Amino acid sequence: MDSGPRRLHELSRAESLRLLDSLPYGRVVFTELALPAIRPVKHVLIDDWIIINADLGPSALSGTGVVVAYEADAIDPDKQVGWSVIVTGMAEVVHDPHEAARYLKMLRPWTREPHDRVIRISPELVAGFELAAEPLARQAS
Amino acid sequence: MDSGPRRLHELSRAESLRLLDSLPYGRVVFTELALPAIRPVKHVLIDDWIIINADLGPSALSGTGVVVAYEADAIDPDKQVGWSVIVTGMAEVVHDPHEAARYLKMLRPWTREPHDRVIRISPELVAGFELAAEPLARQAS
Repeated sequence: MDSGPRRLHELSRAESLRLLDSLPYGRVVFTELALPAIRPVKHVLIDDWIIINADLGPSALSGTGVVVAYEADAIDPDKQVGWSVIVTGMAEVVHDPHEAARYLKMLRPWTREPHDRVIRISPELVAGFELAAEPLARQAS
Repeated sequence: MDSGPRRLHELSRAESLRLLDSLPYGRVVFTELALPAIRPVKHVLIDDWIIINADLGPSALSGTGVVVAYEADAIDPDKQVGWSVIVTGMAEVVHDPHEAARYLKMLRPWTREPHDRVIRISPELVAGFELAAEPLARQAS
């Protein structure tokens, strides 16, 4: 295992969303009873929305929605290289039953919990980074 | 790919912490400028603490600490089986420089960012679940 230093390389918004789209699941981060909460969920990216199936509590059911973060990563624990993408934006319930049903069919969630709703997240802030091995030239200098 | 239904099986506290300890990294969840925030970080479990290296903002530097969540998972995207563990508890900065240095040596963080601190999280709430294929007997019924 190479335990040398790693370099963080910022990814563009387009590259970050492409990587997010390459994985079927991530983690939604929200506030539940004033405590930080996180749930692993499956996702699909459709028309610039991140679509998930989750129970984000009663505040997400309101008209204005709630701010959430959404994260996905693929980091090789041995090689210690990979990437992580963190999206921050408004989450709102998809109320239209036909639209929700169409998204559920694409999502194919692992389980169906009684309070789950189909949620769409607007990727307002997108932060992606790549964890890469330090270039040899810099290690030698 | 078996796309049949999945069953959520709750894990005990001991089993959840054992699984967490089997992975070198997870994600710390906190509040940053009133927004939900998440960072992938490496961890070690020592003396019932989860030790990480992160910048959780100025509030984590206060004497009382802050409440965070910490998550790790290993879910096979194709087989759709795996586990997830979510810990919620107080996070506080390790101020003792000798203790912090000892933990850093064990952590071997991917990178060293200027505002990172060595943090210990007390696992007050531990929620673990296993995602398993629905037993054949139940599918047939």
